[in-house]
Amino acid sequence: MASRRRVGEFELIARYFAPLARSFAGAGGLESDNAFLPADARHDIAVKTDTIVSGVHFLGDEAPRRVAAKALRVCLSDLAAGGAAPLAYQLSLALPHGWQERWVAAFARGLSADQRRYGIVLCGGDTVVTPGPLTVTITAFGTVPRGRGLGRAGARAGDELWASGTIGDGALGLLAARGRLKGLGAGDRTALEARYRLPRPRIALGRCLIGVAHAAADVSDGLLADAGHIAAASRLAVHIERDRLPLSAAARRALSLDPALWANVLGGGDDYELVIAVPPRRRAALLAVARLAGVRVTPIGRFERGAGVWLTADGKATKVPRAGYVHF
Amino acid sequence: MASRRRVGEFELIARYFAPLARSFAGAGGLESDNAFLPADARHDIAVKTDTIVSGVHFLGDEAPRRVAAKALRVCLSDLAAGGAAPLAYQLSLALPHGWQERWVAAFARGLSADQRRYGIVLCGGDTVVTPGPLTVTITAFGTVPRGRGLGRAGARAGDELWASGTIGDGALGLLAARGRLKGLGAGDRTALEARYRLPRPRIALGRCLIGVAHAAADVSDGLLADAGHIAAASRLAVHIERDRLPLSAAARRALSLDPALWANVLGGGDDYELVIAVPPRRRAALLAVARLAGVRVTPIGRFERGAGVWLTADGKATKVPRAGYVHF
Repeated sequence: MASRRRVGEFELIARYFAPLARSFAGAGGLESDNAFLPADARHDIAVKTDTIVSGVHFLGDEAPRRVAAKALRVCLSDLAAGGAAPLAYQLSLALPHGWQERWVAAFARGLSADQRRYGIVLCGGDTVVTPGPLTVTITAFGTVPRGRGLGRAGARAGDELWASGTIGDGALGLLAARGRLKGLGAGDRTALEARYRLPRPRIALGRCLIGVAHAAADVSDGLLADAGHIAAASRLAVHIERDRLPLSAAARRALSLDPALWANVLGGGDDYELVIAVPPRRRAALLAVARLAGVRVTPIGRFERGAGVWLTADGKATKVPRAGYVHF
Repeated sequence: MASRRRVGEFELIARYFAPLARSFAGAGGLESDNAFLPADARHDIAVKTDTIVSGVHFLGDEAPRRVAAKALRVCLSDLAAGGAAPLAYQLSLALPHGWQERWVAAFARGLSADQRRYGIVLCGGDTVVTPGPLTVTITAFGTVPRGRGLGRAGARAGDELWASGTIGDGALGLLAARGRLKGLGAGDRTALEARYRLPRPRIALGRCLIGVAHAAADVSDGLLADAGHIAAASRLAVHIERDRLPLSAAARRALSLDPALWANVLGGGDDYELVIAVPPRRRAALLAVARLAGVRVTPIGRFERGAGVWLTADGKATKVPRAGYVHF
């Protein structure tokens, strides 16, 4: 068969779906993590939909409460990037043939635990049976101050790029879960795998970024891709310094054993950290709100005039080929 | 294998998901078609999520623009039942392996046509690839006057039950599409099949029902089931007279050829008409707004104290066994 290149998710959105959203200001041209619907005089409602499919976005052997947590948290991570406070969510659950009631019971317990943890509550949805794999779609709603929700557009030349937490653990955790990091100690493998299986959305930090950041995105497609999305939506270039990336001790040890894993750290997804465009004059404000939220933030690069993603590694700056379109 | 009865969709919701929605007033205990989020001082936002799976909720051979129309319209039908004016929607598209770009292009054209027809616009979503069948989840938003959105609860003893349009064409259309109505003329089969393949949500009528109806639901699970949902949510019994059901000429001919098809007309779904609880004193108002909307409405029964669904056919009233849990 001729190998004709498939268009990727972002091209599909730009080509076919963005035109359908052109007349709705709150959709932001589908360039950001969230859409914004007008709520009351002082608030908008941030809206985000995410679908996870068994065997694609989570491992088929995953415990039901963890599937629930992952489905909810990947959406909450987007709300965090928008600066939103969680409000409610809709759940579409497509159960495979042969589903068991006890699976659903455990899944619901998982949702319940996360509802308490993140202050969000179910408000409706749909349940169907599918001949395909278990598929969970969540549409989450959050509130932001009117007109001030954060998107990917809005970064300005000179803004610094910051990252929350540590980067690369999600992608390394997926490798660990698949038994591919044999050389690493068991403790490190377990720690990384936990990061992959159970995202920790940066809700507390995200809410504090309004008034501090110009733009934000969550790291779901990979650091280079998601920082690149901010750059593209803001019509700028982004320069990232690899050696400034915040790494966990486990990731650091994995990289020292196998430097080829840098590709996973930079290009893999599922970190669910935030990348944030902040003007240098608001550096102190960012550090203050991050301390308040109990999250470490690290400057890893900056936005400049131009286009594309530039990576400095081993003292050499290289333009990164179109990043993040690969996992679709 | 022992045949252990599976719990149905509504039991699953009541047992595991309604408790998760208990603290959110706008979720209405998950008993209605829509949830309501507070919007501005004068409006709420009605929210509804529906998932359709290829081979389950639509035929695998369906044209992409019709899949788009079905996905959007089943959601719009729920908004209609809530009395909502369409606002925007989120789309989750799970594409099967081997998807074709031209399929997506035609699907997007279908959405575009319906956006113009119903005054709704895309505001975000997610696109993934699945090893399973094509699956489309839409979360639709509409606006209703503050605190006045219609639900299934709210009918009162003495209210009349009305139906819009004609009942049973959806279920008979599915049979026609599967080649099971051979005795019927080709014109009738085509007309019924079109009703199955392409719902016509009663948006114009639904919006006019606020201030007229006490409760409403769309006929997606089947007439007996959906009228029964209003009765159950309103803690009442509903009495339906089979011979007053509004039937299309094609359905009438199908029933005269095979009276066993009454089971499909009464119990099959996919009509996407509205069943409406209206106090007798508002009969004139209902007829006026229906005329305005260009939709026929027919009184087919009434709500009384008690519980359950009662059907009068051939002069005999019978209590209908738990209806509508069968298609899950």
